[in-house]
Amino acid sequence: MRQATTILSFDTPGRGFTDITRAIAGWLEGTGVAEGLLTLLCRHTSASLLIQENAAREVRTDLAAWFDRLAPEGSHYAHDDEGADDMPAHLKTVLTGVNLQIPVIGGHMMLGTWQGIYLAEHRLVAHRRQVAVHLIGE
Amino acid sequence: MRQATTILSFDTPGRGFTDITRAIAGWLEGTGVAEGLLTLLCRHTSASLLIQENAAREVRTDLAAWFDRLAPEGSHYAHDDEGADDMPAHLKTVLTGVNLQIPVIGGHMMLGTWQGIYLAEHRLVAHRRQVAVHLIGE
Amino acid sequence: MRQATTILSFDTPGRGFTDITRAIAGWLEGTGVAEGLLTLLCRHTSASLLIQENAAREVRTDLAAWFDRLAPEGSHYAHDDEGADDMPAHLKTVLTGVNLQIPVIGGHMMLGTWQGIYLAEHRLVAHRRQVAVHLIGE
Repeated sequence: MRQATTILSFDTPGRGFTDITRAIAGWLEGTGVAEGLLTLLCRHTSASLLIQENAAREVRTDLAAWFDRLAPEGSHYAHDDEGADDMPAHLKTVLTGVNLQIPVIGGHMMLGTWQGIYLAEHRLVAHRRQVAVHLIGE
Repeated sequence: MRQATTILSFDTPGRGFTDITRAIAGWLEGTGVAEGLLTLLCRHTSASLLIQENAAREVRTDLAAWFDRLAPEGSHYAHDDEGADDMPAHLKTVLTGVNLQIPVIGGHMMLGTWQGIYLAEHRLVAHRRQVAVHLIGE
Repeated sequence: MRQATTILSFDTPGRGFTDITRAIAGWLEGTGVAEGLLTLLCRHTSASLLIQENAAREVRTDLAAWFDRLAPEGSHYAHDDEGADDMPAHLKTVLTGVNLQIPVIGGHMMLGTWQGIYLAEHRLVAHRRQVAVHLIGE
């Protein structure tokens, strides 16, 4: 049994979803681990991780609109030091969470056919975001 | 230290909650692992996993109503290829997430007294759903 | 490779957020594990775990107000045996989830600079809450 860890960095273009499935799969392949558990932690409080549909682009459009409906910008927040998009970004991060765990079997992540791994940027402008990655297995 | 993995399938009767606690506990018992970490991944984008109250049935009634309030059906979604219940199902999946991790001590999942593991089906009609299961321990 | 497990108890003062980052870091340090995976499970259905901003106190004020907006008290719940704050507490628990996983590198949790681990108490009155902790690594 062995472990591998890394911190991966991703440049986001501002609010939206970045598909990081290939980057994660590429790193996993490099470890040579065939059976194990892969864990991801987004190291931020205004960007998050989620697994969702990788086919229909409209799902992500609707998802972004839904985030805005549940956590709208507005003047009713106590925390607004960093602009109107800041507190909604924290709330959307809580909504989706910053963690993912994916069993690995036969050298592959056990994602379903329609599942992709997305880094969700909730701030308006571009950011560089870090994801801590842990793998245990053999 | 060793690992065990499997893909479990569950037939859901359509929208609602299926208690999969016993199925998971049965599989765990079969592995003989006394101390470890159990991880579940629902391999779908319109069904999800959650841990909630296993006693009062009304909690699940209220939970379903709350899901419908936060992610209602409607004509305002861009993604509607698969029917009116499809996009709300994706949103409810994001809301609850598709991952669970449960420490195992003394051969038992460390769930609280009132906690059960539920597979939440968010589509209206019956589906067969897969849950990838990973266990590491000894 | 080895494991360590424990059940930690925390007294909450009633509704609000308790920063448990130091307690978890202290326990981790005691294990002597330098590289591994730390998993937390809150063993309740009306209290939950989340990672959020540890600096600006207003973020937690806004977060509490947002929880109340998404899951308000009211007479529309079927489950009200334990009072008006009970069902909203279940919903908030589903919203945030009861699980966290944190990669450990160089003896430290790989949290970002602004991330703290919070136990969120969703009931009005004080409770003693249990968090199951699992660590694997070396």
